[in-house]
Amino acid sequence: VGVGRHRAAELDAADPLRTYRERFAIDDYGLVYLDGNSLGRMPRATPACLQQVAAVQWGDRLVRSWDEGWMELPTEIGDRLAAAALGAAPGQVVVGDSTTVCFYKLVCAALELRPGRTEIVTDVDNFPTDRYALEGIAQARGLTVRWIQGDPAAGPTPELLAPLLGEKTALVTFSHVSYRSAHIADMAAISALAHEAGALTVGDLSHSAGSVPVELDRDGADLAVGCTYKYLNGGPGAPAYMYARAELHDQLRQPIWGWLGRRDPFAMEQGYLPAPGIRALLSGTPPVLSLIAIDEGVNLVAQAGIERIRAKGIALTELAIELADTKLADRGVTIASPRDPAQRGAHVALAHPDAERLCAQLIERCVIPDFRRPDVIRCGFSPLSTRFVDVWDGIEALRALLESSR
Amino acid sequence: VGVGRHRAAELDAADPLRTYRERFAIDDYGLVYLDGNSLGRMPRATPACLQQVAAVQWGDRLVRSWDEGWMELPTEIGDRLAAAALGAAPGQVVVGDSTTVCFYKLVCAALELRPGRTEIVTDVDNFPTDRYALEGIAQARGLTVRWIQGDPAAGPTPELLAPLLGEKTALVTFSHVSYRSAHIADMAAISALAHEAGALTVGDLSHSAGSVPVELDRDGADLAVGCTYKYLNGGPGAPAYMYARAELHDQLRQPIWGWLGRRDPFAMEQGYLPAPGIRALLSGTPPVLSLIAIDEGVNLVAQAGIERIRAKGIALTELAIELADTKLADRGVTIASPRDPAQRGAHVALAHPDAERLCAQLIERCVIPDFRRPDVIRCGFSPLSTRFVDVWDGIEALRALLESSR
Repeated sequence: VGVGRHRAAELDAADPLRTYRERFAIDDYGLVYLDGNSLGRMPRATPACLQQVAAVQWGDRLVRSWDEGWMELPTEIGDRLAAAALGAAPGQVVVGDSTTVCFYKLVCAALELRPGRTEIVTDVDNFPTDRYALEGIAQARGLTVRWIQGDPAAGPTPELLAPLLGEKTALVTFSHVSYRSAHIADMAAISALAHEAGALTVGDLSHSAGSVPVELDRDGADLAVGCTYKYLNGGPGAPAYMYARAELHDQLRQPIWGWLGRRDPFAMEQGYLPAPGIRALLSGTPPVLSLIAIDEGVNLVAQAGIERIRAKGIALTELAIELADTKLADRGVTIASPRDPAQRGAHVALAHPDAERLCAQLIERCVIPDFRRPDVIRCGFSPLSTRFVDVWDGIEALRALLESSR
Repeated sequence: VGVGRHRAAELDAADPLRTYRERFAIDDYGLVYLDGNSLGRMPRATPACLQQVAAVQWGDRLVRSWDEGWMELPTEIGDRLAAAALGAAPGQVVVGDSTTVCFYKLVCAALELRPGRTEIVTDVDNFPTDRYALEGIAQARGLTVRWIQGDPAAGPTPELLAPLLGEKTALVTFSHVSYRSAHIADMAAISALAHEAGALTVGDLSHSAGSVPVELDRDGADLAVGCTYKYLNGGPGAPAYMYARAELHDQLRQPIWGWLGRRDPFAMEQGYLPAPGIRALLSGTPPVLSLIAIDEGVNLVAQAGIERIRAKGIALTELAIELADTKLADRGVTIASPRDPAQRGAHVALAHPDAERLCAQLIERCVIPDFRRPDVIRCGFSPLSTRFVDVWDGIEALRALLESSR
């Protein structure tokens, strides 16, 4: 019984974004890729773009390319990204270092803006690298991290957050979409609560940007960071971006002072003076090839439109949950993501005690989800490159596995 | 009179490294590139390698590539680089973030190892981004930077360094080869002096690695950093490397705690524990495409051999100085680099009051040096891709310019 594969195929036929799959390099040998929220598919145009940039900008123009465009790449790609996926006006986003380094810089910058305050609030289910970075900063500065101990299938809800806030709170940091459960945090409510306490926010958009609408300006975000290699399809380890609300720029100081974040960098003068605006968040030379590889993924999101991407993400995850309920529930699989699509990003966490073994066996069968300890099979449905039949095939493969291992 | 172009051509014909120029993408339209110490030439093999990595490792293998090689890239490329160019035994070098971020991490790590000491010693002519990073760290921690005010054409000599050292000194940091004058610092003597005072050293190898022999293990270096886009031809903004002497690994703590530097990173557990060995210096996900682009440049240095590269670097700079003395000295150009080749890296600083204008005019004529304020025309002679006739043509172009603007 249940939903047949033909219905999934019909959904694909009616999908207004169906042609976008052709914009990615996808060989049709039956791989069911459900990990676009860990490393997104490669846009078909990217290798030729890389080759062209290498041959012309590096190989031919050489050092002259810094004056001919490279210096502006961090802000140019930042502005395009801001418009396509972040709900941020120009001049507030810059692309640079790794997500971890960018997060570190923003947290330190926020702490500088709230001197004397000694507490950072986050949740125990926040993304590991964010937790580790906070621990390191807190230890170095003698600060306290106050941990929200919430429902893992939810995130840092305003209700859980509010009692931890006070006049000691410097900073609230949270993932916009939980890397495990896909729960969408209420950014506007969290911002308002933090501001009421006189604190700032640092949001991590790694699992939301490019899959759900982000409205940084509207929702009162102060600082935000995110990676570009998941739903933005920028490639492995592609540089992360940083957002800082324009009103903060005048006082903004980040800890890693380098030549690219200095006013008039080629002057190479004595003494550091931060560059005006968002460039003050830059430090050293960005990895240009990896930076340029981001561009096509951002273009695809801009062309498809985040609202249509969101609609498809909801439809894909709704189908996955419907199929899991009918095919997997009686085999011990539970849904560890919010059932309300308004609270859920573009992935679904399926919980099972044997999740680790099941994931390994799925991968052997060319169905690729993510295992997340201790018991989660995480299925990411990157809307631009995932079909409804992929959802069907993935869930069916898991059903067959559970069936055969009885 | 002086040296004719034919003698330069003879030197090229006799050059044992002459075939290496063919390993770089160089179109023969007469560009005289004297800036390989700012952005090195592109190895001919790199674009195809990038395309292959993108198509297969990213496009086809996708997230599986992390298990199939990407996780080991930072240490694998680090070890190859260590053997080819750094004089370091395996397990002590890792490639990761930008040079500025790596330098920041190493300086903070050194300070952690010398608690209670409040002074950092460096020289006013050290590379700008290093100076800026130090200023930021000193301001954040209430430390003092003691500046060596030396001869700009020399670097931090042991004689100038010694009086600034004492029981307050946490750290001595210096460029192995000065970015401006090309002066080679005496790494062994600086290390010995620092250690005598109980301090550590952080060396910046950006202008030496790949052009002059570096002997980190032999010369008692503690920590070191360097970029890969100059003499290592890794491409624009290619990630930098960090060296930490093996004996320091047990106590080493860097400030930016992230998932890649954690023990068992995929466990994603609560609490940060540094990875064993050199991996503890890693933070977030490295830019894989830019990381892989380093490999061919390192291969070329390994194949050519650093001793032969050094010999050619001396010969190129000796020719440049000889030509400058005969053709440019009576037109107001002076040599702002050491005349003793044993004290000079692979570039030559030519000083002239109109250096800025002259550089701009040379670039218009497809001769590309670097202008370094206030008065330096910096000519880099990357040994693997620069011919003796390029030296001749570059100096002749400058002579002709000075002649015509009389």
